[in-house]
Amino acid sequence: MGANQLLAELERVGRTRGGGYTRLAWDDATMTLREWFAGQAAALGLELTEDGNGNQTAWWGCGSDALLVGSHLDSVPEGGPLDGPLGVASALAAVARLKASGWTPSRPLGVVNFSDEEGGRFGVACLGSRLATGAITPDAALALRDASGTSLGEVMRARGRDPRAAGRSDWLGSVSQYVELHVEQGRWLAPHGTAVGVASAIWPHGRYRFEFCGEGNHAGATAMADRHDPMLAYAATVLAARELATSSGQRATLGRVLVEPGSTNSIPSKVVAWLDARADAEPALEALVNGIVRRAKAAAEFDGTQVNFRAESTTGAVEFDHALRHRLAALLDAPALPTGAGHDAGILAAKLPTAMLFVRNPTGISHAPEETSTPEDIEAGVDALTAVIRDLG
Amino acid sequence: MGANQLLAELERVGRTRGGGYTRLAWDDATMTLREWFAGQAAALGLELTEDGNGNQTAWWGCGSDALLVGSHLDSVPEGGPLDGPLGVASALAAVARLKASGWTPSRPLGVVNFSDEEGGRFGVACLGSRLATGAITPDAALALRDASGTSLGEVMRARGRDPRAAGRSDWLGSVSQYVELHVEQGRWLAPHGTAVGVASAIWPHGRYRFEFCGEGNHAGATAMADRHDPMLAYAATVLAARELATSSGQRATLGRVLVEPGSTNSIPSKVVAWLDARADAEPALEALVNGIVRRAKAAAEFDGTQVNFRAESTTGAVEFDHALRHRLAALLDAPALPTGAGHDAGILAAKLPTAMLFVRNPTGISHAPEETSTPEDIEAGVDALTAVIRDLG
Repeated sequence: MGANQLLAELERVGRTRGGGYTRLAWDDATMTLREWFAGQAAALGLELTEDGNGNQTAWWGCGSDALLVGSHLDSVPEGGPLDGPLGVASALAAVARLKASGWTPSRPLGVVNFSDEEGGRFGVACLGSRLATGAITPDAALALRDASGTSLGEVMRARGRDPRAAGRSDWLGSVSQYVELHVEQGRWLAPHGTAVGVASAIWPHGRYRFEFCGEGNHAGATAMADRHDPMLAYAATVLAARELATSSGQRATLGRVLVEPGSTNSIPSKVVAWLDARADAEPALEALVNGIVRRAKAAAEFDGTQVNFRAESTTGAVEFDHALRHRLAALLDAPALPTGAGHDAGILAAKLPTAMLFVRNPTGISHAPEETSTPEDIEAGVDALTAVIRDLG
Repeated sequence: MGANQLLAELERVGRTRGGGYTRLAWDDATMTLREWFAGQAAALGLELTEDGNGNQTAWWGCGSDALLVGSHLDSVPEGGPLDGPLGVASALAAVARLKASGWTPSRPLGVVNFSDEEGGRFGVACLGSRLATGAITPDAALALRDASGTSLGEVMRARGRDPRAAGRSDWLGSVSQYVELHVEQGRWLAPHGTAVGVASAIWPHGRYRFEFCGEGNHAGATAMADRHDPMLAYAATVLAARELATSSGQRATLGRVLVEPGSTNSIPSKVVAWLDARADAEPALEALVNGIVRRAKAAAEFDGTQVNFRAESTTGAVEFDHALRHRLAALLDAPALPTGAGHDAGILAAKLPTAMLFVRNPTGISHAPEETSTPEDIEAGVDALTAVIRDLG
């Protein structure tokens, strides 16, 4: 089956009323997607394995020095249809084409579905690949809690998985290259008139938690001068993040905020918010985040409120393997572009030669329902990935 | 039973882990409180009625020209123990004392528990008294939805009430005065060294809904210049509300905000927020709200986002009945103070002579767990309310 057909099979799974997709780790939608992946693997005659972290791999051949291709099937809340599934569907479609053509790989080939790439449920991105590579300890990961207060360990147990099996994965030792195909995030390929690009680097980035603490009170009966309203420092932080990111050419976003008690006629007692920050180099990221924290603290001090800050996850700059990415760029005659988005490929790049292919996204929009690609470009992506597998495999 | 004992009976109902109370209209906690109120009425030999809006009244005697006392038992989310229950418990305790003393009223006396005073579930405050007095139509009220999308009509039906009975209440025609005792909100009585005060007026106030609409996108892959992030105009609105309320001596609060999709690595597509605004006069309130809306629109325009605005509920200035409040102030030798908080007494004041007693709150905090009063002041409040009933009844 072609990649467009494979994606069409998923168009109802986790679909929301707003037209987007909410497929969070271990929820009903991602469980359906896991079953779908298992079915596709069986139809192609691949052997399915699942490691202790929920990462599924469908193998064509076994042994060492394997080539891994794939991506993830989970999404952010209200995300688009392609971030993740395009890479998995393209890998399955490439295998189908290669099998139909009678080609066989000279080394083992794995198609991977990484678990919980987006971190939409437990707050840490690339949790499956981080666990598999040891970038996060099982203890730290299993203790993460979702919005309802349930831990990853409890969630895995409820889905029939043994959390004691989480951690470094044996299969990683037999993999020597990873190539991830992904829908473009941003709009660089469209004006360059090309359907497929090769990633040069991933910007360093992190997620940071701000807790603004004040004094809950009555919104009507409390004079402005008597207030310790933590929403004010939150608002100042949002505007400071925009200003500092814009002036330095970097990126900062506050896209998630929780207010206690969250009542119209109550001054909040607490506002918890998450900062996503990215920069083209690690010192620039550090300067950006430190600047935002300084402005948050100054605002809180002015209001007689407090702010607590901690980094929840950070990822250093990833420069993809030079030899591999130049080989792919030459093979495909494809341009190189950097990305501000994190990926499992960025986690694996710390362990083994890794590369990424991007498929043109005419809207440039990602993590939202408008994320798209044309059927022709999706086929061009499969062409490219097939060529890569033939070349490397 | 005394008011302190009555309140002690309620200390576990709707209690949250944060030490506050969440008792929202028709939830399990308020259903328990309704049963408790019915039991107390029966123990005092009062006859319980419930109108089509969920307002409970316990009657001592029947007929016309009744005196009504009481308050409400619901709370804001994570509210305090006294906002509402103090008035109901004090009224029940006053009736108990009067019965024990052998006194009988010369006119009917009702103790009322108004339904959904806080508006914590359906967004409109004083819903029970607004329905009973015709200040809101049943159609408008029954169509209001809670955070889970369930309408008031559906909720009432699920609790065994017939929504078709909602609307103007017959009993109101037989009531000629209402006195509501309430914990003080703000800290005026403590520095004045007095336990009980009489309300002079309620500031005009309203709740307003802002919908900031932008373009959802990837937080990492979208350059700052390419964004249409609605969180920015929200933040500018929070700071504008503080600035305009402070400079004009009025009050403005943004204590509730919902973000779509609410994901750390997604630029929001939409931010919905509620403004609570109060002022000492109606033109000042209008100027304050208009000023905030202008600043919100200017900020949104700068970012290429949109803002939609509507008033969800507004209440004009309430000047309590002069004859009644001066009579109570003289009887109790109590000072008069205005309040920025809305009350069912403010709704009833449009229909009949109404007064309020405030009981000293040493913290001044309300709508939060720190809301408090001393046992002695609570007894002083019951003394005052008992004297008022003897005088008027």
